[in-house]
Amino acid sequence: MFQLKTDLALETRELYQEEKQQEIPGVAVDQETVKDVTITRVEIMNEEAQKIMGKAIGQYITIECKALRRTDANLKDEVSQILAKELKKIVGERRNLKALVVGLGNWNVTPDALGPKVVSKVFVTRHLFQFYKKESDEGLAQISAISPGVMGTTGVETSEIIMGIVERTKPDIVIAIDALASRKMERVNTTIQISNTGINPGSGIGNKRKALNQENLGVPVIAIGVPTVVDAATLTSDTIHLVMEAFSRQAQKGSQFYNMLKELQEEEKYSLIKEVLEPYNANVMVTPKDVDDVIANLSQIISNGINIALHPGIDLKDVNRYIH
Amino acid sequence: MFQLKTDLALETRELYQEEKQQEIPGVAVDQETVKDVTITRVEIMNEEAQKIMGKAIGQYITIECKALRRTDANLKDEVSQILAKELKKIVGERRNLKALVVGLGNWNVTPDALGPKVVSKVFVTRHLFQFYKKESDEGLAQISAISPGVMGTTGVETSEIIMGIVERTKPDIVIAIDALASRKMERVNTTIQISNTGINPGSGIGNKRKALNQENLGVPVIAIGVPTVVDAATLTSDTIHLVMEAFSRQAQKGSQFYNMLKELQEEEKYSLIKEVLEPYNANVMVTPKDVDDVIANLSQIISNGINIALHPGIDLKDVNRYIH
Amino acid sequence: MFQLKTDLALETRELYQEEKQQEIPGVAVDQETVKDVTITRVEIMNEEAQKIMGKAIGQYITIECKALRRTDANLKDEVSQILAKELKKIVGERRNLKALVVGLGNWNVTPDALGPKVVSKVFVTRHLFQFYKKESDEGLAQISAISPGVMGTTGVETSEIIMGIVERTKPDIVIAIDALASRKMERVNTTIQISNTGINPGSGIGNKRKALNQENLGVPVIAIGVPTVVDAATLTSDTIHLVMEAFSRQAQKGSQFYNMLKELQEEEKYSLIKEVLEPYNANVMVTPKDVDDVIANLSQIISNGINIALHPGIDLKDVNRYIH
Amino acid sequence: MFQLKTDLALETRELYQEEKQQEIPGVAVDQETVKDVTITRVEIMNEEAQKIMGKAIGQYITIECKALRRTDANLKDEVSQILAKELKKIVGERRNLKALVVGLGNWNVTPDALGPKVVSKVFVTRHLFQFYKKESDEGLAQISAISPGVMGTTGVETSEIIMGIVERTKPDIVIAIDALASRKMERVNTTIQISNTGINPGSGIGNKRKALNQENLGVPVIAIGVPTVVDAATLTSDTIHLVMEAFSRQAQKGSQFYNMLKELQEEEKYSLIKEVLEPYNANVMVTPKDVDDVIANLSQIISNGINIALHPGIDLKDVNRYIH
Repeated sequence: MFQLKTDLALETRELYQEEKQQEIPGVAVDQETVKDVTITRVEIMNEEAQKIMGKAIGQYITIECKALRRTDANLKDEVSQILAKELKKIVGERRNLKALVVGLGNWNVTPDALGPKVVSKVFVTRHLFQFYKKESDEGLAQISAISPGVMGTTGVETSEIIMGIVERTKPDIVIAIDALASRKMERVNTTIQISNTGINPGSGIGNKRKALNQENLGVPVIAIGVPTVVDAATLTSDTIHLVMEAFSRQAQKGSQFYNMLKELQEEEKYSLIKEVLEPYNANVMVTPKDVDDVIANLSQIISNGINIALHPGIDLKDVNRYIH
Repeated sequence: MFQLKTDLALETRELYQEEKQQEIPGVAVDQETVKDVTITRVEIMNEEAQKIMGKAIGQYITIECKALRRTDANLKDEVSQILAKELKKIVGERRNLKALVVGLGNWNVTPDALGPKVVSKVFVTRHLFQFYKKESDEGLAQISAISPGVMGTTGVETSEIIMGIVERTKPDIVIAIDALASRKMERVNTTIQISNTGINPGSGIGNKRKALNQENLGVPVIAIGVPTVVDAATLTSDTIHLVMEAFSRQAQKGSQFYNMLKELQEEEKYSLIKEVLEPYNANVMVTPKDVDDVIANLSQIISNGINIALHPGIDLKDVNRYIH
Repeated sequence: MFQLKTDLALETRELYQEEKQQEIPGVAVDQETVKDVTITRVEIMNEEAQKIMGKAIGQYITIECKALRRTDANLKDEVSQILAKELKKIVGERRNLKALVVGLGNWNVTPDALGPKVVSKVFVTRHLFQFYKKESDEGLAQISAISPGVMGTTGVETSEIIMGIVERTKPDIVIAIDALASRKMERVNTTIQISNTGINPGSGIGNKRKALNQENLGVPVIAIGVPTVVDAATLTSDTIHLVMEAFSRQAQKGSQFYNMLKELQEEEKYSLIKEVLEPYNANVMVTPKDVDDVIANLSQIISNGINIALHPGIDLKDVNRYIH
Repeated sequence: MFQLKTDLALETRELYQEEKQQEIPGVAVDQETVKDVTITRVEIMNEEAQKIMGKAIGQYITIECKALRRTDANLKDEVSQILAKELKKIVGERRNLKALVVGLGNWNVTPDALGPKVVSKVFVTRHLFQFYKKESDEGLAQISAISPGVMGTTGVETSEIIMGIVERTKPDIVIAIDALASRKMERVNTTIQISNTGINPGSGIGNKRKALNQENLGVPVIAIGVPTVVDAATLTSDTIHLVMEAFSRQAQKGSQFYNMLKELQEEEKYSLIKEVLEPYNANVMVTPKDVDDVIANLSQIISNGINIALHPGIDLKDVNRYIH
């Protein structure tokens, strides 16, 4: 089957529902709306669901807010707080938390720079604990953070670099931030996904072959992702779908042709998409022209959310005034 | 008529030929191939041609080289030299040339950063002439350079900023470098266009409303552009075109439907494209994922070409070792 | 006389007082302390004072706060508000203000990047007024902003570039932000100077030969500066001064030598400083190692102050949540 | 004794010789001059020498070239080749070399960004070997590279990060590039030191507490360093020294005072330096104003040298045309 590329559990489920008209067995869904923000919690509960979804067993929380594209300071604060709340639930209440925040992606490609930008605004404290030989602090967690770069610039898989740091610094959890791909343009830069299953091969804009997850790192890995691009295949496929539908409506007049269309859909679709995308070499992304502003906004929202969630003594009032 | 967005004269001509199966009246075309590089010189000679092409009267030279995407140092050097040669022809032989090099586009959006990146590698000398009170030099031209930023970050139209600088520093020519949009993905990052007609409204990735041309600046404006993105409308339109063709081939069996298809093409095309692109808000670009490497390579090739063309005493051997 | 390099009116006055033990004639000084912040308002009132001070007739307001080096969000907010208040006084109450904010200095040299960093955080609106064909707005002023780069990278004097933009966009005022040099390390990154006299030749870290002032631009120029470096000559001179004093204290025992010392001070001082600084070529700066954090903090404080002062509808609560 | 901060073995030896007027026992020195370039090879041969020098047993090669400050492309090439030759000698002839190149220092502080800038220009290949499942290549070594950032931004000691990567990727050698401090301004940006002893605590501009050496990493560590700053303590101390000497020359007339001076030198020196540097808090650096150009030049020279030395199939002609 032609696989549409999406990193959002929400969309995988949507695709299944569109086709099968039923909920995926072994998947629990819960939805909540707070003003302009919709929070969808998808839980993949067993191996059957994992197989159908193509995603690991675990929780996937999606915070959606169309208005995020506009520059609304109040809304940004609201989303930061919702993110902090969901993150706290997934991390659990812990005293003296030690967390490593990892910014995945490439500094030099604007829509892929989300992770490194978030990391640059996370309030890093681990070295202060070490310097002052403190074991714990009322207001601060022990946070370390790194943006290791991408394989094309380091020659090393990101997961290898992170495994080494985890082994030596022994954090309680890893939080990995990554730019994702969506199958719907309307979700680009309006959706934040949190999951407790880590980052898996083939996710994100670049290529990561080894998973950043509990199995490999030995500690829970929480992934925070935002779709900042749409795959070109998605855009093309959606277009063809729409054209097909338009023809089908016409074709009902001549019902012989209608059947032909139906057949054609399955057979021809592949070769059409292949033909159009060939010169693109599968290596193309679709992104808004103002992606720089968008990434700046999102990285602020997410770093604020992380800082509030991890440091017990930091709240919204503080984060808006921190800078790094 | 639905206007495909292209900044390349080469493509406008191609589109016309595809439809009309003839050369545009008033347009002269000359083509030359040097190993892997094809040089096409399009001249728009009169107002009729200007109207058909939607581009100003003047010369448009396109240097195409598929292999540019690979990292081949010899090929890069070759293209730099071809660019230098064509640029020299268009600038003309002048002693004591004074040129202002302008990098258009947004530093913070990778595919739009070509202009600023080129400018950062141009060998700037004007202040040295002023400092040493020299009027002329055997080996060096008087070069100044600026990347004024985009209207979204300055609040001022780029052309206003450049007009002010031209009035006060009185260069003989302006050379403006910009990232362009192509209608074919295969031209992205493989094509350099030089023209003596300046930069016109609506060209490039961002929006520039007032032209950067001789009429507005009072001195000749040479534009150097490289398509670094494809408009999403182009990608979508190409897809629909392919789907239409596939159906047309099928539809010949049932000729009544064939006619319907023909009609539909004209009527439906608009609304289909509109429907698909609606959430994109016409403000989306399609670009390769390794756009950072590509822009780095291209900016080196173009700055080398400019440095060789403008400074009489600088040749290929020198430019590869300059850094700024 | 050996001229100590300082861009702060406060320090010029201090130096005079140290030597002459009296206030400079024609200079009015007013001081106010608000918690940790000291505000000193120096007014140079006539030509005699201008000559002695080596600074133009006008107002020089200095906001000093030792604690600025620490990361205290409340203090930052306080300083932003004080800056906004002083700036409002100096700009005057105007409806529909049109201002051009200019970031002087070199993006690529950390302690000189203050101006460009502030500009990147100023809320730019002029193009929106143009786009929506609005003449005025209750909440927003018409702000444009540019960081033209330094002469070494553009080949053009900064003042030439700004003059051109001012002529074409006709702002009511220009606000220029620059990194300064101080003669006391303790003032580095703890002091903000606002003046209504513009930026004058030889100020700042780089070299600007033509003044950015009302005489040249035709509109009032407000300068905001922060010392981010100490001149190496200052550091050396201070050291020698201290050594001299130590010896003088000793030398009182042998009064013949004491006289010799006194003479030596005047004669030898020059050649000593020259000898020590020779390999430095007068082209050296002294700056804190954590200059990156410091510049990030200061640029936030100043851009917040500017955004509050210029836009009637923006207050502290808003600015902390804006990002660009 | 008051310890002058220098990272150069050359200078430590110089200081010893100035004081003791003899060569350090257990230190072998060899000097060679090639046109404008002086190569000094210092070998610390035993523990006694190690103790006196305060530097580990091993080789320290210094390439000095005053003219490096000027922009001379031929000279740059020459220095790249000399660096490559010395580096090859110290690495030894190996087939199928696997090397990890580490860029130490802070991207955001210009004079400390040398390491990261070099790394960004190193030709990284390890992932290509992995992707094509190749064990060896005639023309290319297996190179990986990382700039881990500084402890203030990661919360983790750099050595911890590197240890983890070395354990997992098993390179044959590590090459670490760092910005250093010199005691003489004339050496700043004119001197490259290569050593086979790694990077030791307290070297460089920032603070690194654990050594990056063979003992800690398990593989040889070659350090390449360039002094890009002078410590402010050095500048101050040199000044005082010069003043003292001037007085001593005078004081010979009154010999009682001469003795007093001698005593004072030892006692007072400390408190004087302390008094002057107090507000600087020992955390200040002295650097040339054009440090951005200087770092750009040096990073090109060093990355060229590394690329030539490590990849058997790459020579000077190639490196000048590579870009990353």
